[in-house]
Amino acid sequence: MAKVGRRPGGADTRAEIVAAASLEFAEGGYAGASLRAIARRAGVDPALVHHYFADKSELFVAAMDLPGDPQAVAQEATVPGGGFLGERVVERFLAQWEEDGVSGSPAFVAMAQAVASSPEAADAMREFLAERLTHGGGPFDDVDVAHVRRALISSQLVGLGWTRYVLRIEPLASAPRAVVARWAGPTLDRYFTLDPPTEPPN
Amino acid sequence: MAKVGRRPGGADTRAEIVAAASLEFAEGGYAGASLRAIARRAGVDPALVHHYFADKSELFVAAMDLPGDPQAVAQEATVPGGGFLGERVVERFLAQWEEDGVSGSPAFVAMAQAVASSPEAADAMREFLAERLTHGGGPFDDVDVAHVRRALISSQLVGLGWTRYVLRIEPLASAPRAVVARWAGPTLDRYFTLDPPTEPPN
Repeated sequence: MAKVGRRPGGADTRAEIVAAASLEFAEGGYAGASLRAIARRAGVDPALVHHYFADKSELFVAAMDLPGDPQAVAQEATVPGGGFLGERVVERFLAQWEEDGVSGSPAFVAMAQAVASSPEAADAMREFLAERLTHGGGPFDDVDVAHVRRALISSQLVGLGWTRYVLRIEPLASAPRAVVARWAGPTLDRYFTLDPPTEPPN
Repeated sequence: MAKVGRRPGGADTRAEIVAAASLEFAEGGYAGASLRAIARRAGVDPALVHHYFADKSELFVAAMDLPGDPQAVAQEATVPGGGFLGERVVERFLAQWEEDGVSGSPAFVAMAQAVASSPEAADAMREFLAERLTHGGGPFDDVDVAHVRRALISSQLVGLGWTRYVLRIEPLASAPRAVVARWAGPTLDRYFTLDPPTEPPN
């Protein structure tokens, strides 16, 4: 049974909303979780959820303990007059995960652990990424070619995080962000403009 | 206390050796685990370990439930007369993880979960990859530039696995292996020949 009591906002209210959101995302996926259901589960008024979080994506970022919104990274990729700066995207992606200033990224490791351990968390993350990168002003349009490009860019970014923070393979583990960006940036540039052959070769 | 009884080889002996190896790798890392200690923990003669496994790396592959040895993939990358075929490496990498013929790769997900959840498993995996890709006939020599190239290639491969098997982002999740190889192969080609600038740009 959902709690029906109404509590005033307080020091723990935001944390309780985040905890309730984690459960709703795990059960219903990103698309299936509503702010109303999250409020009900947390025992607070929906208006209070809106007081702390502008929208569902912001709540998901908090529930997954993500360092930032991938849409922000993607938008930085778009330069005035068109074009794409893979190097800038790599550096911003790493900077978001390293914002605590510590060596490594406990946040990335925790995210990787949650997503690898729970198909539901993986589903929610995939839906979240699809929404944030496909709609709402990101550089990707919702067409087939853009899906290929977006998936390939995601694969290189998550692979860098995995190699740098989880496996800690040198020199990727301790190279300055700007150096990693010079190494891997051109990969993103190519993916962003790839006209993908979709037929397997003979 | 380690078990000291000696059991004859049997149906379960191999499984017991693998289980003992998992514990030794978790406690001592890849470098720190010896076949002798693994045999002692399993309560078998070291010769019996050698009966089932040619060397420590083969035992690690079994203990981590890896589908194959990364050295085999790396060696396929080397074509007669030199050169490197990124497309072939991508396709072989995916084929190894999908050898059960099932959609997705439970083995990759299980590996990702173990490595993300245990710093010890991550340490052991890193040491194993360093040994298998740096020594023993792989295409990489043990020099600084080769380390950069190897780490970057690893980052793209593990990122493809993560995107295809864990996050299941389309079209990467269900595209034929040969198609994924055409998309990502040129990335590996570039990394294999990269003369990496190591200074951050100003």
